[in-house]
Amino acid sequence: MALDPNTIVETLGTILPGPAVLHEPTFSGNEWDYVKECLDTGWVSSAGKYVDKFEDMLAGVTGAGHAIATVTGTAALHTALVLAGVKAGDEVIVPALTFVGTANAVTQAGAIPHFADSEERTLGLDPAKLDEHLSRIADINGNVCRNKKTGKRIAAVVCVHIFGHPVDLDALASVCNKYELALIEDAAESLGSTYKGRHTGNHGCLSVLSFNGNKTVTTGGGGAILTNDPDLAKAAKHLTTTAKLPHKWEYGHDQAGFNYRLPNINAALGCAQLEQLPGFIVQKRQLAKAYTNAFSNIPGLRFFTEPDFAKSNYWLNALLLDAENAGLKDDILAATNDNNFMTRPAWVPMHHLQMFQECPKMDLTVSEGLYGRLINIPSSPGLAVELDA
Amino acid sequence: MALDPNTIVETLGTILPGPAVLHEPTFSGNEWDYVKECLDTGWVSSAGKYVDKFEDMLAGVTGAGHAIATVTGTAALHTALVLAGVKAGDEVIVPALTFVGTANAVTQAGAIPHFADSEERTLGLDPAKLDEHLSRIADINGNVCRNKKTGKRIAAVVCVHIFGHPVDLDALASVCNKYELALIEDAAESLGSTYKGRHTGNHGCLSVLSFNGNKTVTTGGGGAILTNDPDLAKAAKHLTTTAKLPHKWEYGHDQAGFNYRLPNINAALGCAQLEQLPGFIVQKRQLAKAYTNAFSNIPGLRFFTEPDFAKSNYWLNALLLDAENAGLKDDILAATNDNNFMTRPAWVPMHHLQMFQECPKMDLTVSEGLYGRLINIPSSPGLAVELDA
Repeated sequence: MALDPNTIVETLGTILPGPAVLHEPTFSGNEWDYVKECLDTGWVSSAGKYVDKFEDMLAGVTGAGHAIATVTGTAALHTALVLAGVKAGDEVIVPALTFVGTANAVTQAGAIPHFADSEERTLGLDPAKLDEHLSRIADINGNVCRNKKTGKRIAAVVCVHIFGHPVDLDALASVCNKYELALIEDAAESLGSTYKGRHTGNHGCLSVLSFNGNKTVTTGGGGAILTNDPDLAKAAKHLTTTAKLPHKWEYGHDQAGFNYRLPNINAALGCAQLEQLPGFIVQKRQLAKAYTNAFSNIPGLRFFTEPDFAKSNYWLNALLLDAENAGLKDDILAATNDNNFMTRPAWVPMHHLQMFQECPKMDLTVSEGLYGRLINIPSSPGLAVELDA
Repeated sequence: MALDPNTIVETLGTILPGPAVLHEPTFSGNEWDYVKECLDTGWVSSAGKYVDKFEDMLAGVTGAGHAIATVTGTAALHTALVLAGVKAGDEVIVPALTFVGTANAVTQAGAIPHFADSEERTLGLDPAKLDEHLSRIADINGNVCRNKKTGKRIAAVVCVHIFGHPVDLDALASVCNKYELALIEDAAESLGSTYKGRHTGNHGCLSVLSFNGNKTVTTGGGGAILTNDPDLAKAAKHLTTTAKLPHKWEYGHDQAGFNYRLPNINAALGCAQLEQLPGFIVQKRQLAKAYTNAFSNIPGLRFFTEPDFAKSNYWLNALLLDAENAGLKDDILAATNDNNFMTRPAWVPMHHLQMFQECPKMDLTVSEGLYGRLINIPSSPGLAVELDA
């Protein structure tokens, strides 16, 4: 029997008490107090205590040795790529199925995205398939990995923990080691998610977070770089703050740096939000559990659940249609949105976008299949509050 | 008689009632109401009414047809350069005497800063000297201007209205026309300043503003692109918002865009600040007037006043030591800062910074002279309030 789009609408209706957007923030903590303090003291910008406090809190939450707050997640990834040694003209492996910011950051570093496929178990990079691909195209000389087809150096791998679900980091790190590639985690979506008990953003040489308005924790707009290497942390702070040399009054700079620091007022918002992260994660997992149950008896699709090695924040909940129902995706998107349950498909895969069509890539069958079958459904932590009522 | 650093301290003391930083914001308007509304409604990020309102207000204040809010002034300039047609490998004329962000934006566009000299009348680019320089090095073929020495295309001129004082825009525009160069105004420091009665940021093909915490109006961190060209305005909005194609739910993009949009919460702050701009300008000009009088009888230096074609916001007030007193600059900086009157020199000229030492440049005698003799003194609008008391 074919899946009826109305069944999805009705099932969402058993969980959601009314109209629901995809993800909205909750400001029920100290947001007012902290932001007002910024205004009262005049410290809204580059100086002020909240940036330091936010960075300390981020290091605490993620277990990373160091966190450097930035103005966006894309800015954080651009900086991380530069610090990982990516040079203009290099190739950087990124998933085809990701938000465009991942690939844009590569472009901003002057490098070329090289698209890799995902696995259905995690929605993120498939380490075994990447290994197989590299075994065919990579030529390692010393510690330089070169793409035999393009002649370019392959410098790094950026994995993305899609919708908050961790990729298989151990397997991926092993592939990166084998091919002499730096591993960067794009943990923009996975704040609060752990891989084998350890927070995402702790496994690559550098990792990045995002605090855009649609994320689990928001600063309005913002991001962060995470690293356990104190030298990289120092370099990240320097590079994101115009590479200014410390001096009582002189304005000297020793490299072409970025103006990527997070304003204090946004960091203040972030501090208040981070205090509530444990509660948000509980709520988001409650909501995911409710969806799991509600959709378990609907044939023709499944609610995507975390890989067995992970505990996910379920940033954006996702339904995966069975392959034979892929043709219903647009009908389901229309029916749910028409009924004020905001849903959306996965991002258009990067290799389909006109500016990336000439970029190197591997077979991307799984990414294309996931794009054809995946639907994100409302995921705000606040929705779980109403669940309990 | 040699200038005594203590004379500067004493003269500042006749104007400043106590310790004074270089520039701090005043939040005495609707800042809290607007920011609180963002928190109460949950609209802190990329969507929300304040970004539109802020852009409308900026267009109104500056007289520019269109304003596009961005996350920093550097982001605005990077975008403006790309939209002005600057390509990787091109040269872009920028003043040697400017904040490093001007040159960094050129680097981020993949281009090469080409440093030009300033004139003492405006502290900004010297149009006559630029004309003379270009007459020797430029080769025009069709509408392409090429540097005969480097072989590179010279694509644009970025003028900076230093410390809020407009450059001679008519003369500069004429030079740009002669050599087929796009003119971009870096009006980061000159919000509220006019050139021949017309607001700065209205004379180039594109202009940029900054709302960093040290500026006349702040959003915590932020910037804007100004243009009178509706097509460029549309392209600027598109490029700064990840070049996303409009669609009810699909995430498609048609170029490698930037994630440069200003968050709504920062725009809310900006709206409240802009409402107070006329008052800030009155206060800042009152303060400059008081400084003018106080320093008029001190031999060996002068207080820098606006060029005769301009009405300046006096963003950062400046003393210019006579050439024979240049050696006292550091003593004066030490004496004033030790007495809690925050002062600083001009930025280290760009061609002295190690990353720009190999960049093309003209004779930079005036820039070097200004750097050797200039001292910025406290300039917050709030200081004028105390003047009246």
